[in-house]
Amino acid sequence: MFRITQMRELTRALQDELCSALEIIDGTGKFHEDAWTKEGNSGGGRSRVMKNGSVFEQGGCNWSEVTGTSLPPSILAKHPHLAGKTFRATGVSLVLHPRNPHCPTVHLNYRYFEAGDFMADGGSGEGNVWWLGGGMDLTPYYLYEEDAKFFHTEIKRVCDAHDPSYYPIYSRWANAYFFIKHRKEHRGIGGLFFDYLDTNNTTSLYRAEEKSYEYSKELADFALGHVSTTSKPRTFDELRDFAASCARLFLPVYGEIIGRRRETAYTESERNWQLYRRGRYVEFNLVYDRGTVFGLQTQGRVESILMSLPPMVRFEYDYTPEPLSREDAMWQVNLKARDWVA
Amino acid sequence: MFRITQMRELTRALQDELCSALEIIDGTGKFHEDAWTKEGNSGGGRSRVMKNGSVFEQGGCNWSEVTGTSLPPSILAKHPHLAGKTFRATGVSLVLHPRNPHCPTVHLNYRYFEAGDFMADGGSGEGNVWWLGGGMDLTPYYLYEEDAKFFHTEIKRVCDAHDPSYYPIYSRWANAYFFIKHRKEHRGIGGLFFDYLDTNNTTSLYRAEEKSYEYSKELADFALGHVSTTSKPRTFDELRDFAASCARLFLPVYGEIIGRRRETAYTESERNWQLYRRGRYVEFNLVYDRGTVFGLQTQGRVESILMSLPPMVRFEYDYTPEPLSREDAMWQVNLKARDWVA
Repeated sequence: MFRITQMRELTRALQDELCSALEIIDGTGKFHEDAWTKEGNSGGGRSRVMKNGSVFEQGGCNWSEVTGTSLPPSILAKHPHLAGKTFRATGVSLVLHPRNPHCPTVHLNYRYFEAGDFMADGGSGEGNVWWLGGGMDLTPYYLYEEDAKFFHTEIKRVCDAHDPSYYPIYSRWANAYFFIKHRKEHRGIGGLFFDYLDTNNTTSLYRAEEKSYEYSKELADFALGHVSTTSKPRTFDELRDFAASCARLFLPVYGEIIGRRRETAYTESERNWQLYRRGRYVEFNLVYDRGTVFGLQTQGRVESILMSLPPMVRFEYDYTPEPLSREDAMWQVNLKARDWVA
Repeated sequence: MFRITQMRELTRALQDELCSALEIIDGTGKFHEDAWTKEGNSGGGRSRVMKNGSVFEQGGCNWSEVTGTSLPPSILAKHPHLAGKTFRATGVSLVLHPRNPHCPTVHLNYRYFEAGDFMADGGSGEGNVWWLGGGMDLTPYYLYEEDAKFFHTEIKRVCDAHDPSYYPIYSRWANAYFFIKHRKEHRGIGGLFFDYLDTNNTTSLYRAEEKSYEYSKELADFALGHVSTTSKPRTFDELRDFAASCARLFLPVYGEIIGRRRETAYTESERNWQLYRRGRYVEFNLVYDRGTVFGLQTQGRVESILMSLPPMVRFEYDYTPEPLSREDAMWQVNLKARDWVA
């Protein structure tokens, strides 16, 4: 099977698995699907949204596949050699906003991208250039150290089964990516993030054309050092299986954390803190998130792209939590990422 | 007096006038000031915020002046010839979010920018390149045609006293600027917007270097046609007085509209509509607003930049108002800008 076919089937199956399990976890909420197509046979998707569930104030799970003939600026900035190429991308993404501030918000995304001259024969065939990307990250409003450790330990366990270099690199990459530059704050407690993963298995974090680093020289050097000593070239099948294993870790791990926290009583003041911190989610997604920027730049389906935004949000000028409060403890972890796996 | 000195004094005086009058209009709310300075003597400002007033759920009024030696990408994209020049900018901005959904949100901004080699002598002197920018725009949640007409008619009256070409060009510019591209929706009902206003009085909307139009060929042609037939070169004093006249129109006009609407009773459903539409304000400000992007790119004071965001916001997937409802009537005007002056 073509890579695009395999990834289409994998990401669609993931969407089905995620939505049906999340309905069970929630208990009363149901996902409602909108199927959509882009004009000119250039793609389509299935957007699924749950509103006002018992656990999830809002949850969205998208699957989509798009094709195009002009790559958006956000991709061309990194890959100028793809100018003029046609591209295809398919992926699944998930964002859950629980109502209870003791339950963390979570995000998951797995995607496949290819570009090349394959459209000449009607869209079949393989792209000359391709990569996989994905990950998952957790955004708690109150810090439960045992949950954070559990989340990271499980991710590391699955990564290590594929390549011991993955967790060290991709957990640092998550810290670098889910970062609100203008506030010098991390969005949450990180997790896993990888992009541009291909058979070279190098995921370069250096842009040769611009002589600049994707995030920082430290991260690029760290990634290069780890890859060169522990890794070997991978086949597409190996990388696909790695992505699938990570994606299938989501339900048991997040389900466990929800199980621990869903019955915790909360106060109006705790709810207000959650609404306030959700503002950071909005800032990150509208200003920095690549999926959001890519989607808005390519005239994607706005409602599907922006369903990652929280259902209710509070902004407050110059707010900082009381020193030594539980809110402050969480914020300090957002300000300085911690290493959760001993 | 140097231009920068005049504009500093004007914009500071405007901040004082606006804040003291808005406290009277509100009745109970008070502005609290944070004075701040950027490190390295590179600028500072006075941020003033009112929270939980009787009328204003939140209001922010900033004055600032910054200097710098490396212009941000958002300016260099339009003015590549300024690369390497030092710059100074001073301005006042205001955003008011009333609690009552029948009272419109409003935004005002007046600013002066100059760049050149003037820092060589310690920061005195005049920039080689300078311009004025500013405007004000109204974002109602419920359409009151008489308010919209009043707002635009008063703006036109003040503009016409300076130059009959101003209102036709700058009201169209407001429609083009306060536009949420990914939704093809206007943020509100427009008003006045101008930028790059200098003694040529041409405010070019064509970027010669990139052979592209600032918004559209239609707007650029319209502006050029109007300017060439009705306008003449202006002195700095004339432009400063034009900006000051527009800024001083704000209080009587917005105060009148608040007076008409502040006692209107509202339902929870109307409040929900307001919270939902405030989401569009967030989308515009974080994705498109030049002041916000400029501020975040130049490591400005985040809390001062983002105090334009509404205090409480609701996002909802795929929401559209009932056809023929009052909410729909407002939305239709956001979708297609209307000409409010007969």
